[in-house]
Amino acid sequence: MKHNKMSILRLMILLLGISWSGFSQKDYKLWLQYNTLTNLDLKAKYLSHIKGITLLGNSETISIAGNELQSALEDMLEKKITVNTKLEVFQSIVIGSKTHLNAEIQKTVESDLNLINDEGFIIKSIVINNKSHIVITGKKEVGVLYGVYSFLRLIQTNKSIEKLNIADSPKTNIRILNHWDNLDRTVERGYAGFSLWNWQKLPDFIEQRYIDYARANASIGINGTVLTNVNANALILTPQYLEKVEALANVFRPYGIKVYLTARFSAPIEIGGLKTADPKDADVANWWKAKAKEIYVRIPDFGGFLVKANSEGQPGPQNYGRNHVDGANMLADAVAPFGGVIMWRAFVYSEHDANDRAKQAHAEFQPCDGKFRENVIVQVKNGAIDFQPREPFHPLFGAMTKTPLMMEFQITQEYLGFSTHLVFLPKLFQEVLESDTYQKGKGSTVTKVIDGSIYKNKITGIAGVANIGNDLNWTGHPFAQANWYGFGRLAWNPYLDSETIADEWLRCTFSNDKKFIAPIKEMLIQSREAVVNYMTPLGLHHIMDTGHHYGPGPWVSNLSRPEWNPVYYHKADKNGIGFDRSKSGTNAVSQYAPEVAVIFDKLETCPEKDLLWFHHVSWDYKLKDGHTLWDGMALKYQQGVNQVAAMQKTWNASEKYVDSERFKEVQMLLNIQYKEAKWWRDACLLYFQQFSGKELPIGVEKPSQSLEYFESLKFPFAPGN
Amino acid sequence: MKHNKMSILRLMILLLGISWSGFSQKDYKLWLQYNTLTNLDLKAKYLSHIKGITLLGNSETISIAGNELQSALEDMLEKKITVNTKLEVFQSIVIGSKTHLNAEIQKTVESDLNLINDEGFIIKSIVINNKSHIVITGKKEVGVLYGVYSFLRLIQTNKSIEKLNIADSPKTNIRILNHWDNLDRTVERGYAGFSLWNWQKLPDFIEQRYIDYARANASIGINGTVLTNVNANALILTPQYLEKVEALANVFRPYGIKVYLTARFSAPIEIGGLKTADPKDADVANWWKAKAKEIYVRIPDFGGFLVKANSEGQPGPQNYGRNHVDGANMLADAVAPFGGVIMWRAFVYSEHDANDRAKQAHAEFQPCDGKFRENVIVQVKNGAIDFQPREPFHPLFGAMTKTPLMMEFQITQEYLGFSTHLVFLPKLFQEVLESDTYQKGKGSTVTKVIDGSIYKNKITGIAGVANIGNDLNWTGHPFAQANWYGFGRLAWNPYLDSETIADEWLRCTFSNDKKFIAPIKEMLIQSREAVVNYMTPLGLHHIMDTGHHYGPGPWVSNLSRPEWNPVYYHKADKNGIGFDRSKSGTNAVSQYAPEVAVIFDKLETCPEKDLLWFHHVSWDYKLKDGHTLWDGMALKYQQGVNQVAAMQKTWNASEKYVDSERFKEVQMLLNIQYKEAKWWRDACLLYFQQFSGKELPIGVEKPSQSLEYFESLKFPFAPGN
Repeated sequence: MKHNKMSILRLMILLLGISWSGFSQKDYKLWLQYNTLTNLDLKAKYLSHIKGITLLGNSETISIAGNELQSALEDMLEKKITVNTKLEVFQSIVIGSKTHLNAEIQKTVESDLNLINDEGFIIKSIVINNKSHIVITGKKEVGVLYGVYSFLRLIQTNKSIEKLNIADSPKTNIRILNHWDNLDRTVERGYAGFSLWNWQKLPDFIEQRYIDYARANASIGINGTVLTNVNANALILTPQYLEKVEALANVFRPYGIKVYLTARFSAPIEIGGLKTADPKDADVANWWKAKAKEIYVRIPDFGGFLVKANSEGQPGPQNYGRNHVDGANMLADAVAPFGGVIMWRAFVYSEHDANDRAKQAHAEFQPCDGKFRENVIVQVKNGAIDFQPREPFHPLFGAMTKTPLMMEFQITQEYLGFSTHLVFLPKLFQEVLESDTYQKGKGSTVTKVIDGSIYKNKITGIAGVANIGNDLNWTGHPFAQANWYGFGRLAWNPYLDSETIADEWLRCTFSNDKKFIAPIKEMLIQSREAVVNYMTPLGLHHIMDTGHHYGPGPWVSNLSRPEWNPVYYHKADKNGIGFDRSKSGTNAVSQYAPEVAVIFDKLETCPEKDLLWFHHVSWDYKLKDGHTLWDGMALKYQQGVNQVAAMQKTWNASEKYVDSERFKEVQMLLNIQYKEAKWWRDACLLYFQQFSGKELPIGVEKPSQSLEYFESLKFPFAPGN
Repeated sequence: MKHNKMSILRLMILLLGISWSGFSQKDYKLWLQYNTLTNLDLKAKYLSHIKGITLLGNSETISIAGNELQSALEDMLEKKITVNTKLEVFQSIVIGSKTHLNAEIQKTVESDLNLINDEGFIIKSIVINNKSHIVITGKKEVGVLYGVYSFLRLIQTNKSIEKLNIADSPKTNIRILNHWDNLDRTVERGYAGFSLWNWQKLPDFIEQRYIDYARANASIGINGTVLTNVNANALILTPQYLEKVEALANVFRPYGIKVYLTARFSAPIEIGGLKTADPKDADVANWWKAKAKEIYVRIPDFGGFLVKANSEGQPGPQNYGRNHVDGANMLADAVAPFGGVIMWRAFVYSEHDANDRAKQAHAEFQPCDGKFRENVIVQVKNGAIDFQPREPFHPLFGAMTKTPLMMEFQITQEYLGFSTHLVFLPKLFQEVLESDTYQKGKGSTVTKVIDGSIYKNKITGIAGVANIGNDLNWTGHPFAQANWYGFGRLAWNPYLDSETIADEWLRCTFSNDKKFIAPIKEMLIQSREAVVNYMTPLGLHHIMDTGHHYGPGPWVSNLSRPEWNPVYYHKADKNGIGFDRSKSGTNAVSQYAPEVAVIFDKLETCPEKDLLWFHHVSWDYKLKDGHTLWDGMALKYQQGVNQVAAMQKTWNASEKYVDSERFKEVQMLLNIQYKEAKWWRDACLLYFQQFSGKELPIGVEKPSQSLEYFESLKFPFAPGN
């Protein structure tokens, strides 16, 4: 009878599913779809372990965890799940932090709790009074919340929940999104609509979206958010705005998420009425101290400041003849009494070092090693230029032994096709994280630098420049949600494999069907190499169009600063192409550990994927596969286009596993990606052909338009600029 | 057994309703919620008439109508509804346009079809071969679609579907939204996020939102949309953008919605390479002709152009010594061969007529009567200034006997509290529409002017400046959806009563429960008078803050043009307050018909609601209720605040009838409205008190802040500016 009812129900839900399609919002639900299990045996197994929920403790966080657990289980298992506050039922999921567990359970998980840190969790199958339960606990309540999401993910991904014995902790302290959101709600490099933060209606109107944002982040372990653009506006630090920030902090707090702000270095002048922002000026230091106090009165767990100083025209300590250490430490002293941190960005470049922009961050920051306050962490982009489709790892990683460095990844696809190209970024992130810096011998990977295991840093962190906007689907592209997800999972555990992440995300977001998972996972995994191929193969970089960065612009050469121009980076001429950063060039290679430098320095040992990053190479240079550089480059561009065509085929074959709305969305977007991949190929090859003077090799399609046509394209309202 | 299954289903749906709350999207579904009927008897009655759907014809429009009918009925009636293409079942809902009906049905509805126009519909209970059906038909397929929505509304509002015999047609030709959307997706006077039009991803990416937008509009009979801001950018007329416009037109077409664009008068210079935009220049005229042709090749049913010329700095024919007729007719000739229209706005003002801005539109346009081409319609704002909380009807209505005039309402609440104030605008619209112009004797209402019944105009229309953005709930405020809905309903039938509209909307959007409907409808109906009271009672106008128009600013007096300053409009001094537009003043009253002019002209006969619009009145003037003007004004401000407090109470009492998400949203917004109502009251009364020199009367709360405080408030990033 029961089974019968359920079948009717399933039928009717299916029906409702169809009938609601006009206003379907699967896209909005991200990886928290909580689809009903279609595998009935598995569902029965899960149900045999889950008769109810026992909630211990009554904080807001526990209540959130309980609601999430209950509603998700009800959706996935199609069964009403009761919630108790005492261990009254068999096979209960018991959730509560250590102090709220009864003595017997506490004893059972005592040794497990020693394995985790304050944000970690335990998920364990236990037997109490001969009755089996699953306990989800942690030292703090946020750990319980993370545990609940982790447990739900087991079911979402159809994993076993028998004999569970999981102890997991995040490997970094600060797992944070950087929103480059302006106060007018435009988003610098945002391709998913506009800022989530509706400043006009804050503090009194709390949008549902803030809550859903917090939920989504908590589900993947993100514990911090910088609300404002690094190109900062001082007004965010005025009471009018702090009141609004406070309201957001109150929403995010029970989800374990701290709020941070960007500090405009000249704020003491702009909103403080001072004549200077010199970090050595006592009035300036006191102004920041008072400002920090004012913030912490409102937001006791305020995270701290993220600062972009003396870069791309932003004010900073150098305006007053001071250096990064002076600036960062002054701010660090202001927030230190309250436990705040300063995330000081190493992304600096200026006209004083036009010989090689790639060298500047290392040149400015490495000598500062050991001079920063304890609550300063230097935030370093993954590569030395700027979030290109591929860059060698940044030479600062491992090069500062006494200063904690945090990773800055870009989740928003400024240089990787905006929100129209399907590119699975965890693959890029993993490549960077696994890179061996050799700075403390073999095995000194970037991961081990940023998780603090090499230099034993007290603070560790990973930042991701968010790809989130107010589009209905949050990220503009349904598959860009995977990059938000993947960033969070890697911030929690930077040793995770990107294939594992793809698998998890696809199952949570779409389907557990193997016939769907296998080809689509493969599509995700190769998607990053595809974009490298059709945009910047073989180590090419920074050849996009100017300002908006949309589409190819290798010909751009008229911008006032040399390092703004693509021609500065590719240096194509009759003799060849590429930026010579070897010893005979700018010697940027010397910023790496000797073991790495020697590999990059030599043409023969330099990995071909980084070839033109480090070397100016003759058009006739023979690549490992026997092709000349010109032919090889052209074939790479073609390969990128072919890969996108293959992605289209793969996706089209998945139609029956995906709801029609998302299926069509991705189909339309892949169509754009295919067009744009060809645009990149044709524009770049036509341009470079002027220098190589060579024909396109067999297998490379002829361009459909002239170089003049491509150069004439203008996009005055391209987003994110 | 059946009943039993349904009960289980209902229970489970309830359950799912709860569990999905984290990502609930009721807000997104507007008035198309299609809630399951809770009245079981009624449901049984409906089901006895609806055994299936018979679809006749196979156009996209009929397929859309069929899908909507099927899915909505399935949602509301919890029953699978089958769709056939032949009359095979009993009690079928038969949908199809006239030509697709079988001979027998055609005969049955023949006389009814004579009652409707091309966009109208018939809904009729018929008997064929002794079997009863309900036929929904029209002369064209779009009429069938309108009929389907109308039929669904009967069920949504729990009306009877026995013995139906409805013949309905729209009373105006052009029922159109004006989107003041810029190409960078900012929306001038937009308070619901940013533009729906994602130009970056068009034409290849069709957002689900475009489809849902079309659905929502079709459901209320809106048949046109101007995609771009009246402060226009010529780039929209370039091929790069026309390709995108074409894609939107393709989406909207099957929903009966035509696309229009704003034409920047100087476009021939900016994108055409011409030296002039003089409408008498042959090259200019030819350029527009070619441009029109280019557009119509892409979009054969393109609606035409909306033009703001020589107003607020926009270019126009006057730049070349020509007049509105020259400009409008030149454009009209360009679109005439393709059936396009020119909507030429009468909203003009310039420094040449600073004596009374209210007079300028009439002064410039009335003399042009009879000189416009047949495909020109002059678009007139409801009042002579600019969408204030209350204005007397515009004197142009009825004053042009040979020129069609269309109404321009503002749905977005530029001057009525943005998207944080609950104001039911159909009440305002109705007040304007019912105003008697007396231009062709008593009963010459504004409605009869714009529906063409007085002067027998060939083209008629109503435009509404949209309040739609990319917020999840479309309009920023859940109740602002009612203003979109109400605009559409009034555009279809300007004789509709606003109470009827409120009733319909509440039932479709929230609940049919009488205990909910009665108090909330009352709240809607009085909400417009509340905003007049706490912002601009007794005929005050244009005293908001500058630029963004957010909050009060009666003190503003430093703007370069006199008629930009609030002091120009209220003219408060020791002697009194108000703008003397009587014969002894600017004589603006003379622009009305004599019967109206005489009423407005005399202090004793002028309606008190318009008092300070037409008269400068002494602070001691005795109002009809015996209060002095000062006391009466202060009490009106207080009354407005009290009304909002009462709205809060009413809403709080409705909690059990509304989903928790929307309940809380409205609760938070009413809280803001209450704060801001007090802000308006306090700031305005403190300011005017400087002139009246009088104490606040008993019953008016003392201000909580000083005038200096209110004058110091700054909102640099207020939206829509």
